[in-house]
Amino acid sequence: MKPMGPIPPDFAAAGPLAIGGRSAASLIAEAGDTPLFAYDFAAVARRIARFRAVFPGVALHYAIKANPYAPLVAAMAPLVDGIDVASAGEMARAIGGGVGAADISFAGPGKRDREIEEAIRLGVTLNLESEAEGARALAIGERTGIRPRLAVRVNPEFEIRGSGMRMGGGARPFGVDASRAAALVQAIVRGGAEWRGFHIFAGSQALDAAAIAETQAATVALAAALAEEAGEVPPLVNLGGGFGIPYFPGDTALDVEAIGTALAATLAARPAVLGETRFAIELGRWLVGEAGVYLTRIVDRKTSHGELFLVTDGGMHHQLAASGNFGTVVRRNYPVAVADRLGDAAEETASVVGCLCTPLDRLADKVALPRAEVGDVIAVFLAGAYGATASPQAFLGHPPAREILVGVPAGDDRAGQLAGQPQFS
Amino acid sequence: MKPMGPIPPDFAAAGPLAIGGRSAASLIAEAGDTPLFAYDFAAVARRIARFRAVFPGVALHYAIKANPYAPLVAAMAPLVDGIDVASAGEMARAIGGGVGAADISFAGPGKRDREIEEAIRLGVTLNLESEAEGARALAIGERTGIRPRLAVRVNPEFEIRGSGMRMGGGARPFGVDASRAAALVQAIVRGGAEWRGFHIFAGSQALDAAAIAETQAATVALAAALAEEAGEVPPLVNLGGGFGIPYFPGDTALDVEAIGTALAATLAARPAVLGETRFAIELGRWLVGEAGVYLTRIVDRKTSHGELFLVTDGGMHHQLAASGNFGTVVRRNYPVAVADRLGDAAEETASVVGCLCTPLDRLADKVALPRAEVGDVIAVFLAGAYGATASPQAFLGHPPAREILVGVPAGDDRAGQLAGQPQFS
Repeated sequence: MKPMGPIPPDFAAAGPLAIGGRSAASLIAEAGDTPLFAYDFAAVARRIARFRAVFPGVALHYAIKANPYAPLVAAMAPLVDGIDVASAGEMARAIGGGVGAADISFAGPGKRDREIEEAIRLGVTLNLESEAEGARALAIGERTGIRPRLAVRVNPEFEIRGSGMRMGGGARPFGVDASRAAALVQAIVRGGAEWRGFHIFAGSQALDAAAIAETQAATVALAAALAEEAGEVPPLVNLGGGFGIPYFPGDTALDVEAIGTALAATLAARPAVLGETRFAIELGRWLVGEAGVYLTRIVDRKTSHGELFLVTDGGMHHQLAASGNFGTVVRRNYPVAVADRLGDAAEETASVVGCLCTPLDRLADKVALPRAEVGDVIAVFLAGAYGATASPQAFLGHPPAREILVGVPAGDDRAGQLAGQPQFS
Repeated sequence: MKPMGPIPPDFAAAGPLAIGGRSAASLIAEAGDTPLFAYDFAAVARRIARFRAVFPGVALHYAIKANPYAPLVAAMAPLVDGIDVASAGEMARAIGGGVGAADISFAGPGKRDREIEEAIRLGVTLNLESEAEGARALAIGERTGIRPRLAVRVNPEFEIRGSGMRMGGGARPFGVDASRAAALVQAIVRGGAEWRGFHIFAGSQALDAAAIAETQAATVALAAALAEEAGEVPPLVNLGGGFGIPYFPGDTALDVEAIGTALAATLAARPAVLGETRFAIELGRWLVGEAGVYLTRIVDRKTSHGELFLVTDGGMHHQLAASGNFGTVVRRNYPVAVADRLGDAAEETASVVGCLCTPLDRLADKVALPRAEVGDVIAVFLAGAYGATASPQAFLGHPPAREILVGVPAGDDRAGQLAGQPQFS
C-alpha cells in the first residue's frame, strides 16, 4: 500500500462527494458522461476572498494557463484585477471572457510578430522576454501607429527556495537578465512605448511561506534597484506567484497569511522610487487547483498476480500530471477516492489505471480504498489546474474530457465585494 | 555541450534537409506555416519492404496509436495485413482509411460497452483484456445477434529484456494472466464467439535483437501450451512488437535480420498444435518513428548568463517526448539540426526551447549546432511516432501543429509487391 496526498478541505471528509453542493452523479448526468472535470467556483471564490483579506491593496492576477476553461475564466474575470496570458489563444480566451485589454498581460518566450501585433492592436501589455522582442514590438508599434504597452520580464538572480519548478536564477529562456533590464527599460521609453513596469517570476508550486516571503522581498528590492538604474518609475511590479498546493503525502498547505504579513512589511518599507508603484501577485494553481475534481468511471475490476486493478474510462490523456508524467521524477499518488464513499474505511489495496494501452497510464498506485465495483466513480482530486489542457487529449483516439463549472451564484453580486481595491496605499 | 541521438539514415548527412525529396521550406510553404510534422512515406515503405524481406509469411500489423494521421493510415493500409487500434476513435480512423473490419483488432484495458458493441457490429476483433470484458462481449453478441470475434490478450510471465516499457511480467493491467488464459478461451468458444487467437505483448522500444528473439520464442511456446491446455487451435498469434528505434546517444539500430532468422527457426520448429496458425508482428514506432521530422522556426535568439537559447514557435505541446516529459526519467537529447545546414560544422552550443512559458519546454539541451538565426528552421528528428497525438496540444492555447505526408507515389502499385503473403508456410 502506498500513501496518497490530502483531499482538499473544500470537500467533506465523509459521505458521498459533493462538488458545489451537487453529487458526482448529478454532475455526470448534466454533463452527459464521464470522464468529467468538475470545477467548484465557490472554492475558487474562497481563495480569492482569502487573497483579498491577506493582501489588501495588492492586485490579483489570474494566470489563465492553469485553467482556461471559458466559463471559469468568465466567472473569475470580475473578481480579479488582471489576467496573465501566454499565447494569442489565451489572449482571445480572456477577451472572450469579458476581460478588458488593459487588464491583460502577455508573457511567453516565443511570441511571433503576428501575436505581438495583435496584442498591440488590442492594447494588451506585452511582457518582453528579450531585447529583440522589444525591438520587434517597437517596430510593429511604429508600423501600425499604435503605442505599444510594454513591461519588462526580468530573469532574477534568485529563485524561490524549494520551488517545484525553477523559473529564475542562472541561465533561463525567460525574461532578460537583471543586469540588462534597466537598459531595456530605457530603450522602451526612448522608443516611445508606454512602459508598464516589471514582471519578475522566480518559481512555482512552493509550499514554504518564508521562502516565498524572502523572494518577494528580494523582488521588491530588485525592482527598486532596476528603477533607480533606469531612472524610471515602474507603474506596476508583477511579483510573480509561486503559491503551491499540497499534492502529495506530507505536503502541507501554504501559510499565505504569513506571506501577507511579510509582504505588508516589505511594501511599507519599500524604497521611495516605488512609492507610486502598484504591486500584483500572479496566481494560477493556488486559485483553481484544489477546486477541480476529475471524475472517471470504473469499467473493469481485475486482478493480476494477486494485485487488484480498477480500470477506468479516463486516464493520463486527461490528467497527465496525476499519472506522474509531467515534470515529476518520482511518481507519487494524488489523492483519489471512491466518489460516493468518502471517508469509508479502506477494504482493499487497488491501483487505479486508465483506459490507455500503456503502462504509463496509472492514476493511483496501490492505494487503500473501500471496495469499488464496475460502474462506481473514482474522484481524482487536485484536478483544477494543469489538467485537461496540460494532457495529451488526442492520445489513442479517445474523446476529450467533459468539463463543468458549478457554484456560480445566479446574479452574483459578490464580484464587487470581492474585487477589493487594487491600489496599495 | 551535451550529445544528441543519431539522425535517421533516411536523411542525407549533409546539405539542406530533404524529406521525401522536398525541402523543408517547400513543405512549410505547402502546409502554410510552422510548426509542422512532415512524414516521409517512402521511409515507411522501406521499413515495410524490409519487414517483408526479413519475415516472409509473417503478417504485419500496424499499431495505429503510434501515428494515426489519416493520410498516413490510408497510405499504409494496403501495405500491411492488419491494423491494431486502441479505442473506438482509432477504429473509426482505420475504417476511414479503407481498412476492412476483418483486418482490425482492438486492444485496450478500459473498453466501454458501446465501444465493444461498435466493434462487434463492424466485425472487428476484440482483444479481451479480462474475463469480465469477455462476458460483456458475449452478452452484447447475444443481444445484438452478431457473433463476436474475440481474441485473448495474455499477460505473459516474461518480458523483453531491456525493454523501454514493460508490458508483461508480474501484475499488469493488460490481458489475463497466462494461468487463466486457457479457461477464457474455453469460455469464449463455449459462449459461441469466433475465437481469433492470442495477443501476447511483452514490451516495447527494445534495441536488443537477441532479447526480442528470445521473447518471440517464449511467446510461441506459451501460445502452444495455452492452445494445448484449452484444446483449441488459435487461428492467429499476435507476437506483439517491441522493435525499437535509436533515439539517444549510444543507441544502435535494431538488427531485425537477426530477429527474422531466429523467428524462422522458431516457427519451423513450432509445436504441432500451432501448425495451421498464422503469426503476426504488431509494429508502430519502428515503422513510422524515423520517417517523421518536426519542423519549428526560430523566433528569438537570446543569451542569459552566457548561455545561448534558440526560442522556437514549437515545443513540448507538440513533441512532449522530445522534451523528456513522457515516460522518461533522465532527459536526453533527440537528434536536432538546423534544417538547411545538415552536416555543417558546429559553431556554437545552444539550447533549443519552445514557446511555452515553462522550463519543461526544452527540445534540445546544450547541443552543438552551426550558427542559426531568427527565421531559420530547426528539425527535430524521430517525430514520426508518439508526436502530435501524444502531446498536450491545447497547453497554453497555442495552435495545433500542422502535419503533411510526402513520398506517396501517384498511382502507387508497390502495394501489391510489398504486401507479401501473410500465411506462414
